[in-house]
Amino acid sequence: MNEVRTGDRKVLIVGGGFGGLRAARELAETQGIHVTLIDRNPYQLFAPLLYQVATGGLSEDDIAYSIRGAIPGVDFRRGDVVRIDSERKTLRLEDGAVLPFDELILATGSTGTTFGVPGVEEHALQMKTMNQAREIRSRLLNAYEEIENGHRPKEHLRVVVVGGGPTGVEVTGAVAELQRSMKREFPDLAEFASVTLVEAGPRLLPMFSEKSSAHAKGELEKLGARVMVDAAVDRMYPADVHLKSGEVLNAGTIVWAAGVAAHEQWATLGLADRANRLRVDASLQLTEGVWVIGDGAALEGPDGRALPMIAPVAMQMGIHVGKQIKAKAVGKPLVDFVYKDKGQMATIGRRRAVVEANGLRLHGTIAWLAWLGLHVFYLAGGRNRVSVVANWMWNYVVWGVGARPVVIE
Amino acid sequence: MNEVRTGDRKVLIVGGGFGGLRAARELAETQGIHVTLIDRNPYQLFAPLLYQVATGGLSEDDIAYSIRGAIPGVDFRRGDVVRIDSERKTLRLEDGAVLPFDELILATGSTGTTFGVPGVEEHALQMKTMNQAREIRSRLLNAYEEIENGHRPKEHLRVVVVGGGPTGVEVTGAVAELQRSMKREFPDLAEFASVTLVEAGPRLLPMFSEKSSAHAKGELEKLGARVMVDAAVDRMYPADVHLKSGEVLNAGTIVWAAGVAAHEQWATLGLADRANRLRVDASLQLTEGVWVIGDGAALEGPDGRALPMIAPVAMQMGIHVGKQIKAKAVGKPLVDFVYKDKGQMATIGRRRAVVEANGLRLHGTIAWLAWLGLHVFYLAGGRNRVSVVANWMWNYVVWGVGARPVVIE
Repeated sequence: MNEVRTGDRKVLIVGGGFGGLRAARELAETQGIHVTLIDRNPYQLFAPLLYQVATGGLSEDDIAYSIRGAIPGVDFRRGDVVRIDSERKTLRLEDGAVLPFDELILATGSTGTTFGVPGVEEHALQMKTMNQAREIRSRLLNAYEEIENGHRPKEHLRVVVVGGGPTGVEVTGAVAELQRSMKREFPDLAEFASVTLVEAGPRLLPMFSEKSSAHAKGELEKLGARVMVDAAVDRMYPADVHLKSGEVLNAGTIVWAAGVAAHEQWATLGLADRANRLRVDASLQLTEGVWVIGDGAALEGPDGRALPMIAPVAMQMGIHVGKQIKAKAVGKPLVDFVYKDKGQMATIGRRRAVVEANGLRLHGTIAWLAWLGLHVFYLAGGRNRVSVVANWMWNYVVWGVGARPVVIE
Repeated sequence: MNEVRTGDRKVLIVGGGFGGLRAARELAETQGIHVTLIDRNPYQLFAPLLYQVATGGLSEDDIAYSIRGAIPGVDFRRGDVVRIDSERKTLRLEDGAVLPFDELILATGSTGTTFGVPGVEEHALQMKTMNQAREIRSRLLNAYEEIENGHRPKEHLRVVVVGGGPTGVEVTGAVAELQRSMKREFPDLAEFASVTLVEAGPRLLPMFSEKSSAHAKGELEKLGARVMVDAAVDRMYPADVHLKSGEVLNAGTIVWAAGVAAHEQWATLGLADRANRLRVDASLQLTEGVWVIGDGAALEGPDGRALPMIAPVAMQMGIHVGKQIKAKAVGKPLVDFVYKDKGQMATIGRRRAVVEANGLRLHGTIAWLAWLGLHVFYLAGGRNRVSVVANWMWNYVVWGVGARPVVIE
């Protein structure tokens, strides 16, 4: 642990995701400020690539990076926060430790939400944690083995993905490619494998232009996926997805990528919006000295709509709050947070993507290369970068030729 | 599944390790022979690098490779063998399936053995499966966190490795380097971390020359490890290793690399040696049509000593039995198995190794490069090779500078 000098302002950051790490970096090694980052896991999970772990393109180690020691001058404490006292300015961890703070930054992210659709909780797999990604991989790959040995019906090779946002599109593309590569090992089963993407709204990627939406749909269909729009899920059973239209989709693996929300406990405070996000003031404070950033913060953009729950928002908020705390420490006034929209991207399979940034619109391989470059750039840890690039180059060149993911139980 | 033609001789191979895969490759696509490989896992585990997973140098995916489809023309069946009927020539799997065979190759390898030393089973970690490697990694890394948070005594940063063979030497070197790299993140704990290698015999690597043994000991000591020879373990407790001399070594992690044996069930047949290995005839047959290869086979070399339980023996046996079965199918006589000793190697940390082959003796970096080249060469799967080389290059250049393994639970 770094020495805490008397008189240092104690800043606690809860959550080592994109937002929390940015705030920590901004505040690190600042005269008069001591930063401690708290997380229940000692690693940062590079969540945008979780779908790659789920479909076997990358290893778990590739997208997890040690938080501790990642930022010089910032202490790390592993722990689960069970109670915050904003009056006394203390925070209690599950192991009993009580940590005092002058400033607290809540950067605890979001989890998947089922919107109360019956059966989703029990029968669909979500993809917000490493364990969930691991379970999807295991379910997808073990199905082949179990079906070939006669322990499950062939219909269980069908996969249904719910939610036409970037995550749903990415998973669907990756599953379609995985199924294609499995053809070599299970030639007799290939015809039974399929993937269907189900979206409740009228088009995929609603935050992109209509052109990009149509492009994404076309590309998924080229990969062999079925895309259903205006198709809302009514309820789910272990191997069936019932749509509101009455149609029933059979599936051995159901992935739910239809929505995220902040942590439920917050809803009980009466301070949260529909997605459990805490309403903050323009400087991102909940109360004096308690800041909320990232997916957990409810703040409207200039268009009157809540800012999206995506990494760039979290990162900009993290930097902003870091700056505000530094300003506050030297008696300067606070500044309002303004989100700078730098565009968005989603990949569709191994060589295709859609990118929209600064009026620029890219599709296809060039968009995919831009997507790849940006993701590798933001991936923390040189070793992870080297390994991810090596894996991707390999997959790009020879996917399906002798290399396929395995499930290790 | 490949079509089984009437009249084809059915060859079942149990176990997809070095021996089983070699036999399968030898027999693949042979006129009149149909090969099915059976394993409880659908992947080959590259066991010589398990210690790298245990100490965080490589990912699980790096050393696991899909068996299915790896060898064209060879079928794969996932399953656990529960019964062999050598009279009727059938084999029963746990899921109830009964498979008939004309020729059966048992290539089921070995597990760790405790030699009946009290407490080893309960308190020491072994390293023969992926789960065991994962547990060692988790134990080694979590200790730092738990000690810093005050949940465990500082003595738990000490590691004891029992067994001075290649595995023990490799683990000890890798643990010493891991502890060194953790200094940056836990500077206050560094002085409490240590690793001790305990060997019952008079020197490390007894199958190497005395010069190489001395070299290995010196290199481990340079890395900061303590090496104890002539030190037999009497018993173990959760965090204590008691030596026969009366000395007690305190440790939070105890790794047992002192011995391997074939599977215990075989001992009950009365056909096995002290290490549960089945005594086979010179052509590697247990009974007519039942062959045993690799760690499970007891056969004496020309010097009258049992052949060692190492990968080269298993591979040569696999090829030999494949050839015998082909010869038998066309009415040719069987040939005795002769092991060609091509030398041996062991690595000590990231840049050091000892190699002895064909009268040649290499130490240091050049030996390490030979070790690396050979292991990458034998690693199945281009993707694994690319990823392993990338990881190693990275570790070689910048170990400890911003990259360290994490535990994902």
